[in-house]
Amino acid sequence: MPELRQDPTTKEWVVISTERARRPEDFFVRPAEEEKPEAKKACPFCPGNERLTPEEILAYRAYDTKPGQPGWWLRVIPNKFPALVPSNDITRYMEEGLFRHMAGVGEHEVIIESPSHDLTIATMEQKQVEEIFLAYRERYIKLCQDPRFELVILFKNHGREAGTSLRHPHSQLIATPITPSHIRHKLDEAMRYFDDEGRCVFCVLLEKELKNKIRIVLETDNFLSFEPFASKSPFETWILPKKHCSAFGYITHEESKEFAYIVRLTLAKIYKALKNPDYNYVIHSTPCHDMNEEYYHWHLQIVPRVVAVAGFELGSGIYINTVVPEEAAKFLRETAV
Amino acid sequence: MPELRQDPTTKEWVVISTERARRPEDFFVRPAEEEKPEAKKACPFCPGNERLTPEEILAYRAYDTKPGQPGWWLRVIPNKFPALVPSNDITRYMEEGLFRHMAGVGEHEVIIESPSHDLTIATMEQKQVEEIFLAYRERYIKLCQDPRFELVILFKNHGREAGTSLRHPHSQLIATPITPSHIRHKLDEAMRYFDDEGRCVFCVLLEKELKNKIRIVLETDNFLSFEPFASKSPFETWILPKKHCSAFGYITHEESKEFAYIVRLTLAKIYKALKNPDYNYVIHSTPCHDMNEEYYHWHLQIVPRVVAVAGFELGSGIYINTVVPEEAAKFLRETAV
Repeated sequence: MPELRQDPTTKEWVVISTERARRPEDFFVRPAEEEKPEAKKACPFCPGNERLTPEEILAYRAYDTKPGQPGWWLRVIPNKFPALVPSNDITRYMEEGLFRHMAGVGEHEVIIESPSHDLTIATMEQKQVEEIFLAYRERYIKLCQDPRFELVILFKNHGREAGTSLRHPHSQLIATPITPSHIRHKLDEAMRYFDDEGRCVFCVLLEKELKNKIRIVLETDNFLSFEPFASKSPFETWILPKKHCSAFGYITHEESKEFAYIVRLTLAKIYKALKNPDYNYVIHSTPCHDMNEEYYHWHLQIVPRVVAVAGFELGSGIYINTVVPEEAAKFLRETAV
Repeated sequence: MPELRQDPTTKEWVVISTERARRPEDFFVRPAEEEKPEAKKACPFCPGNERLTPEEILAYRAYDTKPGQPGWWLRVIPNKFPALVPSNDITRYMEEGLFRHMAGVGEHEVIIESPSHDLTIATMEQKQVEEIFLAYRERYIKLCQDPRFELVILFKNHGREAGTSLRHPHSQLIATPITPSHIRHKLDEAMRYFDDEGRCVFCVLLEKELKNKIRIVLETDNFLSFEPFASKSPFETWILPKKHCSAFGYITHEESKEFAYIVRLTLAKIYKALKNPDYNYVIHSTPCHDMNEEYYHWHLQIVPRVVAVAGFELGSGIYINTVVPEEAAKFLRETAV
């Protein structure tokens, strides 16, 4: 019998479909396409090709090297094909009394995570992954201070199914001048729980997951990695700080190293267990100018792209997940890295 | 400069990204993979293979033929791998004071749209497409009367990118025992407009689109096919009845023929313009036991799967659309079929 489960943080339902159930092992995805050597030579993110990218915004590089030159171990650059672009005109307009629009104002940056073309977070050294999250933190805090921006989204597309064709390890950041309704609904639901129960729903969730243990993937002193009760897709994984904290921007330097550790090991487990699947991850956090919320709790969501989202999901918002989250958690827990 | 546009019916924002703009012609997708002849022979939806499917729920067939035998021109069967299954236990349970769940109760049916393995709505005769929508209507009305079900979703996955591996033309229906929050948010937003303005937001939208004409794809006496102002992806297309009507179940026999006509021609334009792209469509309608709403307006949404949804969409709910809807509409309008 399939089961309907409700995400306690969003009230969204998912189907855990045992009728079409697949074992975790069934998700080993096709072997990755081999990349042609030319692709690497022309890679705009490789050292020596800095001229192929816009000017760097931030780089962690050797003291005696210059911007735009090799010698960096992490670079942040404007996206060459930005979804949103810098501008000061944040006026909203209404046409025909119905169609609201505004200029596509924002920032769209690329975090080049390493000089090495063929690495991915799952296979990087701890030190390098720490640098990535320090860069995230630096750019996140900086952009959140900009009064034009309402939301800063940090995300990663790994592999073609996840929406990228560039293999060189990178992630992205987009700052938007609006708070989208998708985010507002999440915040509303968390606020409603807080108003009812007087506590952050994510804090309560952490308590339960730490106690029942069945969905845990990994635990460190200050973070928990687990498969959510109502996972939307096979091997969806969340990583939360154990202590209440609404916004990613509040992470300390020390915590960000520990966060890098748990993210790296979680991704290494997924990499090994599912043979380097395509995936997206995204950091969910409060809007920029509302960072002190008592009711929201920032977290990283990892979604391996192992199944297609189809018409039913489009129409209903209900996702069909063919792997029981408790089994996915067990499989990842038992995957040694 | 990219533009942010808000969907007036849902208040969701999208980015119309002119920086990464692609011309409509750029969406001609890869040539379809050739299917092996064996696949056709073993197709469970082909006439003669009826034994490979569960027993038929409904069939439009020659008077002198029997259920489970050839002679049909449309068949409705239970999905062999159902997401939700029939049961009477619709009790909701709560574990640990936080995790709400219930049995995966529902119906999951497949509408086999034609005996011909290689057709698709875009290439079928008008008469056959009429039969499809008559079958939709028949099953929709029937399942909406079931007190266990809150929502009936009719949808189609066409092609691998859209989530199906079966080529034989078919669509699906899922009846759920819950109203998902995704639907509730849409209804809330439409209700809010109604409470402010005293009119259905979709009726106002139709007036504007009929007047400004720039996003129209096709028009018949009682239906309008157009690219929404805030299209989430290239060539997203909506088809609405011009007269206010909240639920698909109210469509008359005559109207459903006209609806079949506009859907068929719209899909034929997309088929020709984009060279048979993968796509999903879904019928949006009110929940089963709330069908008399003044503020909601049923419609069909077609989403060609020509771009990947990635981490930014996952995190923000904001979609990035690389084709200006007015240009997509012009391109489809000018595609002769």
